Amino acid sequence: MITKGFASDNNAGAHPQVLAAMIEANQGHAIGYGDDKYTKQAIELFKKEFGEDTEINFLFTGTATNVMGIMAASRSFNSVICTDTAHINVDECGAPEKITGSKVIAVENVNGKLVPEKVIPLLHGFGFEHHSQPGILSISQVTEMGTVYQPDEIKTLAKLAHDHGMLLHMDGARIANAAVSLNMNFREFTRDCGVDLLSFGGTKNGLIMGEALLFFKPELVQGFKYLRKQHMQLFSKMRFVSAQFIAYFKDNLWKKSAEHSNKMAQLLVEKLKDIQEVKITQQVEANGIFAIIPEKWIKPLQEKYFFYMWNEELNEVRWMTSFDTTEEDIENFTAEIKKLAANG
Amino acid sequence: MITKGFASDNNAGAHPQVLAAMIEANQGHAIGYGDDKYTKQAIELFKKEFGEDTEINFLFTGTATNVMGIMAASRSFNSVICTDTAHINVDECGAPEKITGSKVIAVENVNGKLVPEKVIPLLHGFGFEHHSQPGILSISQVTEMGTVYQPDEIKTLAKLAHDHGMLLHMDGARIANAAVSLNMNFREFTRDCGVDLLSFGGTKNGLIMGEALLFFKPELVQGFKYLRKQHMQLFSKMRFVSAQFIAYFKDNLWKKSAEHSNKMAQLLVEKLKDIQEVKITQQVEANGIFAIIPEKWIKPLQEKYFFYMWNEELNEVRWMTSFDTTEEDIENFTAEIKKLAANG
Amino acid sequence: MITKGFASDNNAGAHPQVLAAMIEANQGHAIGYGDDKYTKQAIELFKKEFGEDTEINFLFTGTATNVMGIMAASRSFNSVICTDTAHINVDECGAPEKITGSKVIAVENVNGKLVPEKVIPLLHGFGFEHHSQPGILSISQVTEMGTVYQPDEIKTLAKLAHDHGMLLHMDGARIANAAVSLNMNFREFTRDCGVDLLSFGGTKNGLIMGEALLFFKPELVQGFKYLRKQHMQLFSKMRFVSAQFIAYFKDNLWKKSAEHSNKMAQLLVEKLKDIQEVKITQQVEANGIFAIIPEKWIKPLQEKYFFYMWNEELNEVRWMTSFDTTEEDIENFTAEIKKLAANG
Amino acid sequence: MITKGFASDNNAGAHPQVLAAMIEANQGHAIGYGDDKYTKQAIELFKKEFGEDTEINFLFTGTATNVMGIMAASRSFNSVICTDTAHINVDECGAPEKITGSKVIAVENVNGKLVPEKVIPLLHGFGFEHHSQPGILSISQVTEMGTVYQPDEIKTLAKLAHDHGMLLHMDGARIANAAVSLNMNFREFTRDCGVDLLSFGGTKNGLIMGEALLFFKPELVQGFKYLRKQHMQLFSKMRFVSAQFIAYFKDNLWKKSAEHSNKMAQLLVEKLKDIQEVKITQQVEANGIFAIIPEKWIKPLQEKYFFYMWNEELNEVRWMTSFDTTEEDIENFTAEIKKLAANG
Repeated sequence: MITKGFASDNNAGAHPQVLAAMIEANQGHAIGYGDDKYTKQAIELFKKEFGEDTEINFLFTGTATNVMGIMAASRSFNSVICTDTAHINVDECGAPEKITGSKVIAVENVNGKLVPEKVIPLLHGFGFEHHSQPGILSISQVTEMGTVYQPDEIKTLAKLAHDHGMLLHMDGARIANAAVSLNMNFREFTRDCGVDLLSFGGTKNGLIMGEALLFFKPELVQGFKYLRKQHMQLFSKMRFVSAQFIAYFKDNLWKKSAEHSNKMAQLLVEKLKDIQEVKITQQVEANGIFAIIPEKWIKPLQEKYFFYMWNEELNEVRWMTSFDTTEEDIENFTAEIKKLAANG
Repeated sequence: MITKGFASDNNAGAHPQVLAAMIEANQGHAIGYGDDKYTKQAIELFKKEFGEDTEINFLFTGTATNVMGIMAASRSFNSVICTDTAHINVDECGAPEKITGSKVIAVENVNGKLVPEKVIPLLHGFGFEHHSQPGILSISQVTEMGTVYQPDEIKTLAKLAHDHGMLLHMDGARIANAAVSLNMNFREFTRDCGVDLLSFGGTKNGLIMGEALLFFKPELVQGFKYLRKQHMQLFSKMRFVSAQFIAYFKDNLWKKSAEHSNKMAQLLVEKLKDIQEVKITQQVEANGIFAIIPEKWIKPLQEKYFFYMWNEELNEVRWMTSFDTTEEDIENFTAEIKKLAANG
Repeated sequence: MITKGFASDNNAGAHPQVLAAMIEANQGHAIGYGDDKYTKQAIELFKKEFGEDTEINFLFTGTATNVMGIMAASRSFNSVICTDTAHINVDECGAPEKITGSKVIAVENVNGKLVPEKVIPLLHGFGFEHHSQPGILSISQVTEMGTVYQPDEIKTLAKLAHDHGMLLHMDGARIANAAVSLNMNFREFTRDCGVDLLSFGGTKNGLIMGEALLFFKPELVQGFKYLRKQHMQLFSKMRFVSAQFIAYFKDNLWKKSAEHSNKMAQLLVEKLKDIQEVKITQQVEANGIFAIIPEKWIKPLQEKYFFYMWNEELNEVRWMTSFDTTEEDIENFTAEIKKLAANG
Repeated sequence: MITKGFASDNNAGAHPQVLAAMIEANQGHAIGYGDDKYTKQAIELFKKEFGEDTEINFLFTGTATNVMGIMAASRSFNSVICTDTAHINVDECGAPEKITGSKVIAVENVNGKLVPEKVIPLLHGFGFEHHSQPGILSISQVTEMGTVYQPDEIKTLAKLAHDHGMLLHMDGARIANAAVSLNMNFREFTRDCGVDLLSFGGTKNGLIMGEALLFFKPELVQGFKYLRKQHMQLFSKMRFVSAQFIAYFKDNLWKKSAEHSNKMAQLLVEKLKDIQEVKITQQVEANGIFAIIPEKWIKPLQEKYFFYMWNEELNEVRWMTSFDTTEEDIENFTAEIKKLAANG
């Protein structure tokens, strides 16, 4: 098994600068639970990106960040509307339902995206007590299908939400890849497009573990510090997470990492282009590639490179690049595929 | 403010060997969520300490470990009996209640310990549906008052629990300090004394973040992997926690760190002995010191060294030593106290 | 407004014999919470219908019965699969999610029914901790669309569930109407077809308030008495519910009431048949009629008779008959419709 | 076994006028879930007692009323402070914890009452995220020990709560008995004394099942209708509960019933006065009598009259009178006790 593969961007390790920052933060004592200088600095860096009145809280995982965001932005009788492929719908083992009590309603995605036509039929029953009250639209940027929402699409969804007294949540587990893809700074396609709360992910782009929940409506943070603790999401030695974010923003490390990752995905697409048995099924707009390949290739290829099946019936697979993918990795991988193609 | 103080053992950073192990683990890709070689190795190290059939799961915080243990070992209609000073009772912002639904019943501690005389009156109402059914006894080792349960005390509580169809949980946030204090290996005063499940803490003894939930009754783990994910406690890049535990067990790093920490506490006691205004209120059996000091000392001392008041009415303070406390730290701190004493 | 209409079978009052039984039970004192002779007798009557080893618990509402059944038959990380029109999906304000933590997954109904083709694609991810584990198939008998599952359909779903280690739940809010429609006793199309747990509804067929949760797998009841109390579902003066069920089973009152109700639905269909503007959209197999009518009729008709829109876009309405619907009621109602038809 | 005994006031049946009102309400159809004329009328009657801006919701049980009140008036990270004997602490199988997530903190009662001296030491840790935030003081009127809070005592507790940004909840399962004992109308010792929300019980004073949750701060009701449905507390045929309350307020039925019940308790005390082996342990201020009796009497007496032990170690028993207790019942019961006394 080749250990550096295309299974997921969280199979990559940490960027060396991230680890270096943790070592640097390992000086003397620091008050626990976030009352330390590293955390203050990390929060300042976020505020610089998103605005001074942004509320920032660090949490342990992407799942936690999504779930705690839903909790802060709704009540148990609300529903959250997302796509059928959304992480909150299929990859969190029912965490949103168990932890917040809310109903998650999934609608069919269009190229991985939530689209108004699918949402609008669900925006009814307001005031009817038998019905979960629509409370949140939740979108993923990058989507789980590797596509990227354009600012106009986000604005339209934000307006739809706000017109119905709802909020717009963005699951930004791969937000850096989106920023690079859109060639925008973070704020331009989140807060400035009407996003109310954001799960900002760092882990999939070279942190060991670093996720932040951002509120652009300050009232959402009311009581949140208690909720964070009560829901088992408060770091004691928080400086070691904060230090990672400091490294992440320093000299735009996040950007370089995501640019590289996206570029490697394009390179892979490029290399696969001539192999006619490989059908790319989604626009490759960030660092994920979805492809249908011959069934008989799957086993031998997985023996060399671990990766996930996306749709078993279609023989559709998912390949992810990451900050540490090299041109050589791509070369070797496509060589392997070409070998399979050559063998018919 | 002197940044290396006596506020808490989680104000210390990480042991350099722990960080080194994380860097070492930062090689190539590893499958996420624990299916990696570091995690396999770390689990083996735990099994060597506690027995081959121990079930081990890594979680994010001590609170999470306690709460998820309660969840695995009981149902929502059970109650958990602990001392009034227990972390689950006063330091987790109601996490056990919110996450598990169980009732936490606190009884008065005796030297920080849960004692049968206080528990027995609560062991009634079994089968009566109006009454939360006693399900778990939970003890902290080291206790929150810095004292250490003797094996016989644990055996007695285990028998009491088991005789009533209940389980015994141990919150081992400072278990290494207890092992050193008792001069025993981990198993001798946990599993071998009848403990059914254990929150094994590493963070307070030199890890960045590393807590493990151990089940000595294998049936408790049934379904637990889903519960861990659903309760937002599943690391993606788990190797970086596992690597810490590998370093922790290597050459008994845990033991050296805890021995040093306990020794520094004894040194502090020794140094304070001659200052008559300082009254040590609890037996110092591990790395925590509780003392009543003159009220007027508190403010000036806290200006130099951050630490917590334990009991405001009594002017009782808590000082903790840690793996990185030095003799010089003790020297400087006691010098400061002596200065206050000299000033009357 | 004519007060006896076709809005819902729970708009009807109670059968006089039910009230008479409550008055009869109002003699002297009775131990609370179910330890009384009326409750014993009611439970015996259920056992006679469903088998001696059936476990029966009375609860307050249909929603409560469904939710508590899900709780007893699954864990928080399980999912419940049902139709998009299921009561648990659209009429319980997210109660299953909030109370049990489980994920409710809705699939498109076929004539109101859950069909294997829609379910099978969801039966995957077993053992994968990121995925809610499929735990329960839940069907409604009578369906929310007024159709009735045939025994073979139920057996097929039961087999599908059991083959995957899942359970089959039936929401029998209108189970009496189904029994009459199928010309079967209760057991033949529930337990004998593989149903594992049943929400048995009485309220919609002439009780004031009477719902029972039945377990055909005795292990499901383990701990249930505590869950019932803890979830605010334990009557103190339970005899007054039990008395209603005694009346319900006496001389097959349930059957007479449901037969009458179903017959009135058929009469209504018959009367509507000649009005070409009225399109019955579902097979009328019990006491519910779904019909598309001209949009301009809706307002004037609702001014005289309160009823619910089923699908606003299609001008589809729902009319329910009940045990107390009379031929005259049908006559008057259809006369009103004919008047609208005559006016074009 | 004599079926009319002194076990509990919920062992009594319903007042005949209550059943008569239910029969009267059984006319034609009524819209479900509370949108009916009986419910409107019942709510008006409550408003007449408590003020026009009172928010009233009917729920199924006393437990549900307490729990849903806590939910409406706090967040999951709050704590509720009550006495050790409070219903929410010992008789609800952990419902408050499971349903609301809140921590219930019990302090020692003084004559069944919550007293400031016991509460004040708990009013700390505000703003400290590790600590459940004190949110509600909850008192029972009549207390579980049969004593009655005086208006001044309530005012003092209300002030204590409000001064700390907390709310005062009253569990009024036996509020009618308290009103009669105090010779006050309901409002005078609830809302007018600073109570913010009230569980108003009818079941223990002659209803079949009738409990209401009253908010005196209208903002507490925000979203409550959804919470009521989601927590399985919404009646479909609500008119049958409302009708009971209409009867309850008509010609002050509640008052006559409670006066009689309290009077019977006094008569029982009077009769027991001369039996020196019987020690009344609490002031009898309503309809509950607590007494220590010789151990050997308990078994023979319970064989004739079912009643509960209050404290097994002390041989303390609880006897409750109810609206249907007769002088003859008292006569027979005390005759039995005298027989036991005569036999030594």
